[in-house]
Amino acid sequence: MNGAESLIRTAIAAGVDVCFANPGTTEMPLVAALDAVPGMRAVLGLFEGVCTGAADGYARMAERPALTLTHLGPGFANGIANLHNARRARSPVVNIIGDQATWHLAADAPLTSDIASLARPVSGWVRKSASAEAVALDTAQAIAAAGRAPGQVATLIIPSDCQWNPATAPATPITPAAPPAIGDAALRQAAEFLRRFGPRAALFLGGQALRTRALGAAGRVAAKTGCRLVCETFPARVERGGTMPALEKLPYFPEQAIETLAKFDVVVIAGAPAPVAFFGYPNVPSTLLPVDALAATLATPLEDAAGALEALAEALGAPRDTASAPAARPARPTGALNAATIGAAIAATMPANCIVMDEAATTGLPFFGASAGAPAHTYLALTGGAIGQGLPCATGAAIACPDRKVIGFQADGSGMYTLQALWTQARERLDITTLICNNRRYRILQVELARAGVTEPGANARALTSLANPEIDWSRMAAGMGVAAVRVDTAEALTVQLERALGERGPNLIEMLI
Amino acid sequence: MNGAESLIRTAIAAGVDVCFANPGTTEMPLVAALDAVPGMRAVLGLFEGVCTGAADGYARMAERPALTLTHLGPGFANGIANLHNARRARSPVVNIIGDQATWHLAADAPLTSDIASLARPVSGWVRKSASAEAVALDTAQAIAAAGRAPGQVATLIIPSDCQWNPATAPATPITPAAPPAIGDAALRQAAEFLRRFGPRAALFLGGQALRTRALGAAGRVAAKTGCRLVCETFPARVERGGTMPALEKLPYFPEQAIETLAKFDVVVIAGAPAPVAFFGYPNVPSTLLPVDALAATLATPLEDAAGALEALAEALGAPRDTASAPAARPARPTGALNAATIGAAIAATMPANCIVMDEAATTGLPFFGASAGAPAHTYLALTGGAIGQGLPCATGAAIACPDRKVIGFQADGSGMYTLQALWTQARERLDITTLICNNRRYRILQVELARAGVTEPGANARALTSLANPEIDWSRMAAGMGVAAVRVDTAEALTVQLERALGERGPNLIEMLI
Repeated sequence: MNGAESLIRTAIAAGVDVCFANPGTTEMPLVAALDAVPGMRAVLGLFEGVCTGAADGYARMAERPALTLTHLGPGFANGIANLHNARRARSPVVNIIGDQATWHLAADAPLTSDIASLARPVSGWVRKSASAEAVALDTAQAIAAAGRAPGQVATLIIPSDCQWNPATAPATPITPAAPPAIGDAALRQAAEFLRRFGPRAALFLGGQALRTRALGAAGRVAAKTGCRLVCETFPARVERGGTMPALEKLPYFPEQAIETLAKFDVVVIAGAPAPVAFFGYPNVPSTLLPVDALAATLATPLEDAAGALEALAEALGAPRDTASAPAARPARPTGALNAATIGAAIAATMPANCIVMDEAATTGLPFFGASAGAPAHTYLALTGGAIGQGLPCATGAAIACPDRKVIGFQADGSGMYTLQALWTQARERLDITTLICNNRRYRILQVELARAGVTEPGANARALTSLANPEIDWSRMAAGMGVAAVRVDTAEALTVQLERALGERGPNLIEMLI
Repeated sequence: MNGAESLIRTAIAAGVDVCFANPGTTEMPLVAALDAVPGMRAVLGLFEGVCTGAADGYARMAERPALTLTHLGPGFANGIANLHNARRARSPVVNIIGDQATWHLAADAPLTSDIASLARPVSGWVRKSASAEAVALDTAQAIAAAGRAPGQVATLIIPSDCQWNPATAPATPITPAAPPAIGDAALRQAAEFLRRFGPRAALFLGGQALRTRALGAAGRVAAKTGCRLVCETFPARVERGGTMPALEKLPYFPEQAIETLAKFDVVVIAGAPAPVAFFGYPNVPSTLLPVDALAATLATPLEDAAGALEALAEALGAPRDTASAPAARPARPTGALNAATIGAAIAATMPANCIVMDEAATTGLPFFGASAGAPAHTYLALTGGAIGQGLPCATGAAIACPDRKVIGFQADGSGMYTLQALWTQARERLDITTLICNNRRYRILQVELARAGVTEPGANARALTSLANPEIDWSRMAAGMGVAAVRVDTAEALTVQLERALGERGPNLIEMLI
């Protein structure tokens, strides 16, 4: 057994059995080990951002880490943007990065660089293996670090000689740290606030507080006290639709978010950090909580939010059977394609138990509200603002959940960042319907330009926010990567194509000309 | 004037007038300033790796920096791989990165991260502006740092409030540091070695020693002493063909490189670091210089290689008129498409004064030899091993040299990393003919697997080195981004299509099915 084999055996023993990979020469012993040891599924991405985004999507759905396997500093760097999203999603991910042989580092060969400096900004845990014998324990510790509740990115750098040199044995799995329970004071404070303020209170939910068990308890609290459930703007994963409790999503622009929260006299937070503005703007505060409201944290993102919300429901004496009455599902829309008709069309046709990855940016805004009455489904959002997450994240979600339909609701500008994910979807025959919002612009930047006072953009500003000239034909690009595609330009055609595409198995794509 | 305008005015005053950009909200004041101040050409890349690779290609050809403009840590991170190549090419590049407003950093909003940690591994100079008033001088110093001979990557991080707050004036351009002249001892040693060993000596050239003036002097030295001229394996830029002196390129695999250099009793180095293996392999040394040979450095990469080689030619009493007799140009090839026929077809048809960006990987190997007798041209290579450089670098070269035909000789696996560059080529109507080597595999990795002893790859190793299943249709993808494309599968068809494509103006693409 060499170091590489000890790594793969350790990972499999720990239940980590998917590897999103784009290896190079310094990872060849690991590639060989993927065949020498049975039980690891290797998935090729034709760009590392596909691999890391897929690992994030996989982790959100499987609730355990996958490996990524990338090639030295530059290969890893291509995956940083989606690891940034994974970090903000608190997804468990284990990055394996090959490096030059220990004795070859000093030669400063062309691909040599400071990998740890690149890894630290996106990793909660970084280590470089010092020998082949150390790789197994390093791997077990990396997996445990990634699994530290609720999850984080762990990065292990392995020089190539530490992969090919002999090792003794794999390491025994290490149980990751469970989330700490909340203290009594936090519980008492939250219960008192919600009891006292009732409908003038918001329960602000994020992270683990948006999964099934936690939301069930949050629904009981809302039913008992009349408080409102507000969801963070960019949740990693929310269970919703069907009989899940209704959630209001905090708006993106700070002025609107401040207005939303200003209705409340008290905000109790669970699973999320206190809400802040996505960007700083002149004369707009960083924090979104009302200055004159009371705020209390029931559970931080690192604490046991589900346990906290269940304890809160009990402390409030909330009945156990408070499933909400399902909201209304929208009718099939007609007419022009726009954000409203697209959101309604998806909400009207999405099947029960599907997963929606929403990186639809401005076009996606009406969907969340429209789909409150859709059948039970899982909603995934762009957590870290690093665009190019949607197609890869949908890819990983489909690998984690092969029996669930995945809908990739995708802006065109963001989609262009990591379009190579379509090829992986085709190769792995993943059950994903991708909906491209082809509005031929970075619409959000046109809005931001206007907010910055540029009401009549000049030639450069127009050029830098437009995806026209030439217009991109997504259906051709998808076909070029093996994904069957159609184009639509009316709500009626979209609904027809959605029903067809969602009724098929395997990847397909609908390009929506807005 | 605000900080952003002071930046653009300072850059234009310093002769920096191209900006490869993919901005976001934190760069909106800079986008506005691109129109408020005349004279800066903004070029949109639909992925940051396109912007940074284009800045590298631009710098290699223009011999002055362009700006890149990217969006916080994750946006910048998408450009790191090609900045790694730029660092190894010693290209002058100035990165401008927006950051959260100074007072908003502590809120740890979703896009916040440690940008400097990401920037340092690829930058020779990193700074964050502390105020709007500081931006102008920071910019002038960044440009001067980038221009420090022969060139380096300089990165300036500018919080958004430092862009929108008032500033007083642009800064006066700062003359970058010129390369230091070599010392007498280095010159005497090199002259003595070459005089004494003649044909048993190699003059190993890299970096600035491969540009016109330096190569002219190197040719005189070779003519006088009989020494051989050996070019580094991955040169940033070489002037060749026509009457330029013949160069032998050092092979990629270390065993072959060692064998090549073992012929020599002395190696004199100019403009390059001493040659080392690209990767460490078991039982192969890091250094490629013969253990029993003499070695002398005439000029380091940071010294004045052209001046050094001219001084050397004078010291040796080399005649001034030693233009080499042109080598033979290959005949038009016939038959199957393979590395040899493709190399011959390009060499047989390429027009005088063209620029060839070679990221053709294994398929590209015969081209360098075949094109020794082609008309005068510039050859650019993948300097840092971070794949995905070719299409962006060709894009930047075409912007630097609008009157020269650019040939993008491109491997398929590497091309998939940054295929979005084709869209920029279409938008800017750049005169680039892209030749995709569609062999449907990471051929180099299949070779490396065999070198690592995996002679019968298993299912995972086969999957991770194959681009088949599904096969990628580059002509469709190119058409989807507005670049006209054809497919060929014989040498005859390639030659016909090359002559047509090279005779047109504007971007086009030939997909070669190998």
